[in-house]
Amino acid sequence: MVEHQKIAVEPRSRPAMFDAFVDAVLSAGGEIVPVDEASALVWADPLAAADFPGIFAQGTNLEWIQLPYAGIETFSENLAAGYLWTCGKGVYADPVAEHVIALTLAGFRHLHTSIPAMTWPAQEGRNLLGAHVVIVGAGGITESLLRLLEPWNTTVTVVRRREVPVPGATRTVAFAEMHAAIAEADVVVIAAALTDRTRGMVNAEFLDAMPSSAWLVNVARGGHVVTVDLVDALRSGSIAGAALDVTDPEPLPDGHPLFTLFNCIITPHVGNTPEMGLPLITERVRRNVENWIAGEPLIGAVDLEAGY
Amino acid sequence: MVEHQKIAVEPRSRPAMFDAFVDAVLSAGGEIVPVDEASALVWADPLAAADFPGIFAQGTNLEWIQLPYAGIETFSENLAAGYLWTCGKGVYADPVAEHVIALTLAGFRHLHTSIPAMTWPAQEGRNLLGAHVVIVGAGGITESLLRLLEPWNTTVTVVRRREVPVPGATRTVAFAEMHAAIAEADVVVIAAALTDRTRGMVNAEFLDAMPSSAWLVNVARGGHVVTVDLVDALRSGSIAGAALDVTDPEPLPDGHPLFTLFNCIITPHVGNTPEMGLPLITERVRRNVENWIAGEPLIGAVDLEAGY
Repeated sequence: MVEHQKIAVEPRSRPAMFDAFVDAVLSAGGEIVPVDEASALVWADPLAAADFPGIFAQGTNLEWIQLPYAGIETFSENLAAGYLWTCGKGVYADPVAEHVIALTLAGFRHLHTSIPAMTWPAQEGRNLLGAHVVIVGAGGITESLLRLLEPWNTTVTVVRRREVPVPGATRTVAFAEMHAAIAEADVVVIAAALTDRTRGMVNAEFLDAMPSSAWLVNVARGGHVVTVDLVDALRSGSIAGAALDVTDPEPLPDGHPLFTLFNCIITPHVGNTPEMGLPLITERVRRNVENWIAGEPLIGAVDLEAGY
Repeated sequence: MVEHQKIAVEPRSRPAMFDAFVDAVLSAGGEIVPVDEASALVWADPLAAADFPGIFAQGTNLEWIQLPYAGIETFSENLAAGYLWTCGKGVYADPVAEHVIALTLAGFRHLHTSIPAMTWPAQEGRNLLGAHVVIVGAGGITESLLRLLEPWNTTVTVVRRREVPVPGATRTVAFAEMHAAIAEADVVVIAAALTDRTRGMVNAEFLDAMPSSAWLVNVARGGHVVTVDLVDALRSGSIAGAALDVTDPEPLPDGHPLFTLFNCIITPHVGNTPEMGLPLITERVRRNVENWIAGEPLIGAVDLEAGY
């Protein structure tokens, strides 16, 4: 068994992240070593999942692997048992929750019609104050969003895998009751992990269950939504609008219908931008390396069975 | 002296408001009478200020006049001494504060570029979380905004006429220090009453004092801003952008430069829409009539000297 302070940071394809993580490991008392000498691997490029198996295979002494993003579906093939896997769960929750409020207010306050207007727009809008917010998912984003919404006098229903009450939510229901819950929503926020259970859950049936006055906000993963069904719902007006920070496919190709629908707001996966996120994940790496060396529990452990 | 329960509601040019105010007076225990028999006049059309002098002149027994809007500059010629004047001060504060957050986040999260985009936009944006917010004005909107911002970990500087600390603000400064305060802002929110002192205060000098990264948000009155100076600042990039719910002139004429500048977001005076506002001002009327009949102090008294 290798000493815990011996830690590898790989790959080097994203220099700003690599440099920040190396500094974090050093400032936490770690020592940077090649993968084959390391007790732990800190992965420093979320977009380089394809390079992971080759580098991971060299790590014959590895016990712990830190992944950089909150959503780890691109790494899911690699999550071998017998290792401790941690990810960025919860790290980016605050900026993403902020973006949920930006997108919801953009829809409710008709910025999708006012911003492109070249003439004095119609006086329309509705309030988030006092609205009914349904959040699908009960992770870090939901926790942050509940905190930010606290002064808004909203009713918040959280839909989650298990019916364990979420602190701060008005009520918590299990996935089986999702369609009943969203039928009363002013806005439905998708903030769940992408798993076999949630992939494609926002389909025609889901969209039909929403009131025609409600907005859909997705800050999780594009794969939660069946895009063709959403396009139909936006065209027919069976929902009021959609504000999507993630899409399927992503990035959306030029000319995609979602770009042209007036009641669809697209942002380019910026709930957490690299500039917002790097200091947040770097601090997580630093704390986890500190805990690892001290033999204390790590933050953001992946549940291999649940897949997040 | 006429009994306090005798109250006139005029004019009838805005039937939804007239009907709502009549119901409010009745439900508060009042009796609807013609203006010449009334102790009080509840004015039921904010856009009919021109009709006010004629109707007011008939009210030989009037002691109290309730005006419908928070901003009363169109009535300022009529505010005779010797009467108790009340207005909608504070009534619309919550929805307007909500709109401040909608507009600020729209700018910070680059919705002004993402919403009109027909191709995957650039990944840009910054956080309101932790930002420095400077609010000019210390009335109801500021109070509501401070409450809504409470979980956002912002630094809030309030600029007001007198240097009396505003509860919940990080610091309060007097108008004399305004340019120093806005020099450190991420966003400058105009939430002041329009008076001789504040008219045109957002001029070239003010805009030069703001950092080039900062947004201007105006939810108060268009007259606070020297529009040509703002157009120059937006064109030169001496500020990052402006989000305006009020303009000068208002409505903006077609083809106005503010419509064409990409870094200017225009909404059509919807901080509080008629639909949002009518129940709020109706409840204010009901409470004030109740207090008037009971001989208790009224809410929203106008300070004739200050002009709001």
